[in-house]
Amino acid sequence: MTHARTQAAGALAGIRVIDLTRVISGPFCTQMLGDHGAEVIKIEPPERGDVLRSQGNIVNGFSWYFAQFNRNKRSLTLDLRSDEGRAILHRLLEDADVLVENFRPGVLEKMGLDDATLRECYPRLVVGRINGFGSTGPYRDRPAYDFIAQAMSGFMGVNGPPDSDPMRAAPPISDMVASQNLAFGICAALVRRERTGQGEILETALTNGLIGMLGYLAAEFFATGQVPARTGNDHPMLYPYGLFRASDGEVAIAPSSDAMVERLLGALDLLPLLDDERFADNARRMAHREPLREIINRVTAQRRVEEWIEHLNRAGVPCGRVYSLRDTFNDPQVQAQEMKIEIDQGELGRIPATGFPVKMREAPAAVHHPAPRLGEHTHEILRELGVEDAAITAMQARGII
Amino acid sequence: MTHARTQAAGALAGIRVIDLTRVISGPFCTQMLGDHGAEVIKIEPPERGDVLRSQGNIVNGFSWYFAQFNRNKRSLTLDLRSDEGRAILHRLLEDADVLVENFRPGVLEKMGLDDATLRECYPRLVVGRINGFGSTGPYRDRPAYDFIAQAMSGFMGVNGPPDSDPMRAAPPISDMVASQNLAFGICAALVRRERTGQGEILETALTNGLIGMLGYLAAEFFATGQVPARTGNDHPMLYPYGLFRASDGEVAIAPSSDAMVERLLGALDLLPLLDDERFADNARRMAHREPLREIINRVTAQRRVEEWIEHLNRAGVPCGRVYSLRDTFNDPQVQAQEMKIEIDQGELGRIPATGFPVKMREAPAAVHHPAPRLGEHTHEILRELGVEDAAITAMQARGII
Repeated sequence: MTHARTQAAGALAGIRVIDLTRVISGPFCTQMLGDHGAEVIKIEPPERGDVLRSQGNIVNGFSWYFAQFNRNKRSLTLDLRSDEGRAILHRLLEDADVLVENFRPGVLEKMGLDDATLRECYPRLVVGRINGFGSTGPYRDRPAYDFIAQAMSGFMGVNGPPDSDPMRAAPPISDMVASQNLAFGICAALVRRERTGQGEILETALTNGLIGMLGYLAAEFFATGQVPARTGNDHPMLYPYGLFRASDGEVAIAPSSDAMVERLLGALDLLPLLDDERFADNARRMAHREPLREIINRVTAQRRVEEWIEHLNRAGVPCGRVYSLRDTFNDPQVQAQEMKIEIDQGELGRIPATGFPVKMREAPAAVHHPAPRLGEHTHEILRELGVEDAAITAMQARGII
Repeated sequence: MTHARTQAAGALAGIRVIDLTRVISGPFCTQMLGDHGAEVIKIEPPERGDVLRSQGNIVNGFSWYFAQFNRNKRSLTLDLRSDEGRAILHRLLEDADVLVENFRPGVLEKMGLDDATLRECYPRLVVGRINGFGSTGPYRDRPAYDFIAQAMSGFMGVNGPPDSDPMRAAPPISDMVASQNLAFGICAALVRRERTGQGEILETALTNGLIGMLGYLAAEFFATGQVPARTGNDHPMLYPYGLFRASDGEVAIAPSSDAMVERLLGALDLLPLLDDERFADNARRMAHREPLREIINRVTAQRRVEEWIEHLNRAGVPCGRVYSLRDTFNDPQVQAQEMKIEIDQGELGRIPATGFPVKMREAPAAVHHPAPRLGEHTHEILRELGVEDAAITAMQARGII
């Protein structure tokens, strides 16, 4: 566990992002940009703000769910349905590098920010969007949600035990993957802009991102025309692989090549099995999965999980315990990697969050701002734009900010 | 289904990537860079090449599994254990923007490419790495594999039905997520390099990427100290949500707010339920999940899946069918989004692959090269470096290339 760092720079230092997104898919993307040094201005509707502010566990009036996705941003409240609100947005865009939104297709157009206007008024701006199904095609106007994207991408259909329903991944994986895709795409577009001066309009969709993650399962389907069977915790192409029974729990073992299988069987004192014609190569081991599982389980059941993990790792066999989240965040490696951080939220105390998966040597990710209170930076940002205090007060009275 | 495009440019046009990676986590990353226009030179060991070349379904001698992760690259065989091989690598790095590797920590050092040397010889180079657990900490030298990263990140522990074992995601999600993180990080580092002239050394790890995807499950654990229960296809915080029984199958329904629940119950002709004190708000619906599930199932069982999908979408409720991969790639929206493409592999015919999740307006992703045969571009690339034909022949005779 580490303390929040307050370093000033990061790879994206000097990049200004105007963030119209809410819930998960957009805010996770803009947080990735902010973690790496971009200045992110999160625009929220006055009074209610991002819907996540009222979801999940709320401690001292502040949602830790919201905090998990909104560090490294400043919050500006702005009613984008009003002409005055939209005028402020335009003034912000004049000095911005990136605009990110995750409205349904068409909503931004209705605010007067159609693509032609954006390209004409802000030729250097990179506009990034996330939507459910893509902004063209028959489902473009359908409402989307992570669970539906998991179902309709085919992702859910390949998950789960062979004899049960298709099984979703518990984290909102389509939102998270779309965020990563968009963060990548925005940075790629910024590289081009630095080299050509040209802005870009790009988008990604919850479904499309998960389809892109199907990897070899898609390749196998294309090659065979057969829908891959659900195999639970077994690998569809490799054996041995999966969960095995130790004396005090289960141990995950995953040798990925014949050489590693040999190391595993050696470490289990089962090398003669390779002379058994049922187990001599991977194809035969796949065909005789159950007897092999039984033989291995008989051996692994004789020692404790920790003993196997030490013994097998020494032999060079990938293995580990199935962690609960408590195990994960207590793990010495996870702590050494600073994958749990604590962020100073001022009077709210310190709020833990997951750390930075991308470690940069020269310009590392850092916490520059804690997750903001709703409208915390409205005055500050409007003053930076040169709006006078009297005008700010008047906008506040009319509910524009 | 669309045909491969052969457009010349993309957001990363002009960026040259030297790719030492193999299997999934690295190649998926460099393919993302290549899809968006980077020039990728994949360096493979002579004779055997990337291990994926011999895995999965092999059609006419070519692995479709390999093809899924290696389009938009040229292949150069090079024995990096030899001085001559490493000398060629150095000549390539002189003119490169990015080096990507996914060896275990320490392997690149043993080739003489330690960090200090890389920074000194190639100050503008962006070096990106993927490893299992991170290059520091007690597990840095452990072998890793997707299944182990799923187990030790806590990701697996939150997936699956409440009454069963923790369940992995079927796609190699830790490899794929690490690839996305690295592609993002590399582009962010390139943005900085364009602005400062400084290169970078960055890394991500299979475990760290998945910890970053835990999102609100991590937030809830931090807030409550309670390990989140596995809830299968139910949402841990929202109800109704999940799979419901239609007359001819299941329909996934996921209203994400009280307003959407009202629309759903209206569309099911069940609005009076909101006056039932068991179902009046989300907390009470969570507490009475089973009776509500039963009531909704009684209604949904009266019509077919397709009817519900049309009816509920019209009402603005996110819903869909749980697709098999066949359904996914036959879906008109997936086709409209070109999420299945076919790549011309010359004499091997056309090989299908998943499409581009990031859609750029001005500089779109495209297929510039099909996945290469092993060493297909060895001569071409060496000639570009100015190596003479006699020297190429001599290297070939000694097994260097």
